[in-house]
Amino acid sequence: MFALAGAVALLGAAPALAQDTKVIAVSIPAATHGWTGGVVYHAEAAAKEVKAAFPNIDVIVNTSPSAVAQVGVLEDLVATRKPDALVILPFTSEELTGPVQSVKEAGTFITVVDRGLTDETIQDLYVAGDNIAVGSTTAQFLLEELGKGDVVVLRGIPTVIDDERIQGFQDALEGSDIKILDIQYANWNRDDAFKVMQDFLAKYPKIDAVWANDDDMLLGVLEATQQAGRTDIKFALGANGMKEIIEKVMEGDEITPISTPYPPSMIKTAIYLTAANLNGQAPVRGKVILDAPRITKENAQEFYFPDSPF
Amino acid sequence: MFALAGAVALLGAAPALAQDTKVIAVSIPAATHGWTGGVVYHAEAAAKEVKAAFPNIDVIVNTSPSAVAQVGVLEDLVATRKPDALVILPFTSEELTGPVQSVKEAGTFITVVDRGLTDETIQDLYVAGDNIAVGSTTAQFLLEELGKGDVVVLRGIPTVIDDERIQGFQDALEGSDIKILDIQYANWNRDDAFKVMQDFLAKYPKIDAVWANDDDMLLGVLEATQQAGRTDIKFALGANGMKEIIEKVMEGDEITPISTPYPPSMIKTAIYLTAANLNGQAPVRGKVILDAPRITKENAQEFYFPDSPF
Repeated sequence: MFALAGAVALLGAAPALAQDTKVIAVSIPAATHGWTGGVVYHAEAAAKEVKAAFPNIDVIVNTSPSAVAQVGVLEDLVATRKPDALVILPFTSEELTGPVQSVKEAGTFITVVDRGLTDETIQDLYVAGDNIAVGSTTAQFLLEELGKGDVVVLRGIPTVIDDERIQGFQDALEGSDIKILDIQYANWNRDDAFKVMQDFLAKYPKIDAVWANDDDMLLGVLEATQQAGRTDIKFALGANGMKEIIEKVMEGDEITPISTPYPPSMIKTAIYLTAANLNGQAPVRGKVILDAPRITKENAQEFYFPDSPF
Repeated sequence: MFALAGAVALLGAAPALAQDTKVIAVSIPAATHGWTGGVVYHAEAAAKEVKAAFPNIDVIVNTSPSAVAQVGVLEDLVATRKPDALVILPFTSEELTGPVQSVKEAGTFITVVDRGLTDETIQDLYVAGDNIAVGSTTAQFLLEELGKGDVVVLRGIPTVIDDERIQGFQDALEGSDIKILDIQYANWNRDDAFKVMQDFLAKYPKIDAVWANDDDMLLGVLEATQQAGRTDIKFALGANGMKEIIEKVMEGDEITPISTPYPPSMIKTAIYLTAANLNGQAPVRGKVILDAPRITKENAQEFYFPDSPF
C-alpha cells in the first residue's frame, strides 16, 4: 500500500515539476583559493535559501576546476536540461564568452558575475564589485588617519581588476602629502607578498603604511613585517574582506583597523536577484555595481561569515 | 479550551516576532497617475511575495499623496517602530532628503528608488532605470526601421529624467538621415500631448515618425493622429511600458510595434533585493541600473502585468 502510494505520488509530482519548477543553473570556479572558496560557500548557501523561500524554483550549483571544465558544464546544460536562468562567474572572459552565448541562444536568462564576458550584449544582468572604490576607500582612510607619510603598495596580477584598484588608490592620493614609495606585483599570493614585503623592508628604512590590494597578500605582508620587528609601520591594509582580516577589524587591531569588501557573497546577490525575476517578474535586466564601503569595527558584523572559508 | 489555546499561542508568538522578525518599511507616492499606480501595485505584490517567501520578514507599504505627507510617514517611522530597512521612492528629492537622513541615523538601511536624494551618501542601495537608454533604444529602432525621415518629439516636464531621455534620443540620431523637425513640452500629460500633436500636424505636412517620451503622452498623440486621418506617420512610439501600449506591441500594431521600459515594477526589484540582504546577508550596498531594452512582440510577455493598473 505504502509503496503504491509512493509511486502514485511520484507519478503525480513529475509533471508538476516539469511544468511549474523553474531552474537556475549556477556555474562557478571550484574552490581553488580563498576567494573562490567563498564563492562556492555563498552559492551553496544561496541555493539552499532560495529553494526554501521559493518552492517553485530549483537551484543547481556546478563548480569547475578549469575554464575547459566550465565550458563542458555549459555544453551539458544546453544539451540536457535547458535552465530558465544561468548565473555564471566565468573562469576567463575569453574562453567562456562563446559557450555562454550558446546557452543564451537556447532561451536562457544570463546573469554574469564579477568577470564580464568579452561581448557585453550577451548578459541580461551583470553583478560586480567596484574596484576603483576598493582603491579609493583605502586611500581615503589613509588620508584621514595618516594625513602624510610614505606608503608601499603590493598589486596582484596584471588585469583590469588590479589596474582599477591601483588607479582608484593613486587618484585619491593625488596632490596629497602621502607619497607612494614603491609598487610591486605579488600575484595576489601570500608567499609572493611575503617576499615583496621583505624587499620593501630592506630597501626603505621608514614606511608609514602598506597597502596590499588583497587580503591574501596582506597576510604575507604582516608576516614579513612581524619577522622584521619593524615598528615604523602604522597601518597595513588589504582588500576583499577575508574572514581572518574581518576578525582583526572586529577586535580593533591597531595595524589593520579596516578592510574594504569585494565580497565573494556577490554570487548570492546575483542568485537572489535572478530568483526575484523568476518568482515575481521583478525587472532585473541591467547592472548591479556593489560599493566598497569602509569596513570598521562598527559594521564588521555585516561583512562577517563565520562558517565561510573566506 | 480553544480560546485559551489561542491566547497561549499569541503569548508565545509575540516575543518571537519582536526578536526575529525584520521589518522593511516601503514609502511611495500614492496612485495619483498611471506610473505611480503601477508602483503601488508592484509594491503591494512584492510585499505579499516577500512575506510568503521569508516568514521572518515583514513588509509594510505606506503610500503618501504629497511630499509633506511622505515626510510625516518617515517621522512616524523614526518615532515608533524603527524598521530594519526603508525602501523609498521619494516624492521630491529636495523635501525628502533630510527626513530620510533622520531614518538612516536611527540605524535603518536605506534603499532609494528612481528619484535620487540630493545627498547620494545617504542611500545604501539605489535602484533606478536608465533614461539615456530609453531615448537611445527608441532612436535605434527608428534608425533600423525608418533609416531616414522627419520626426517630431514630445517631451515631459523639465527634469533630469526628461533631459536624459531627450539626450539619449538626440545623441543616437546624430549624423544620421533622421531629422528632428520639432520638440515641444507636453508635461507627460495625455491632454497636453493631444494639443501639441494637433499643432505638429497643422504645422508639418509630412511627418514620418513621432516619439512621445512617455506612454501617457503617446495615447494623446495617437488620438490626435487618428482624428486628423493622417496616413504619412509610419511610427508613433512612447516609453515606460504602459499596459495598453504593451498590448499593442503584443498584437503586432503597425504604428506602435515597440516600447521601452521604465518599469514601475523596479520598486519590486528594490524590495526583493533589500529582503535578500536581511534574509541571507547578500551584499546589496551599491547601485542597480536597469536597462531599457526594446520591447517587441517576442518578449512583451516579460513586461506585461495584466492585473496592474499600468
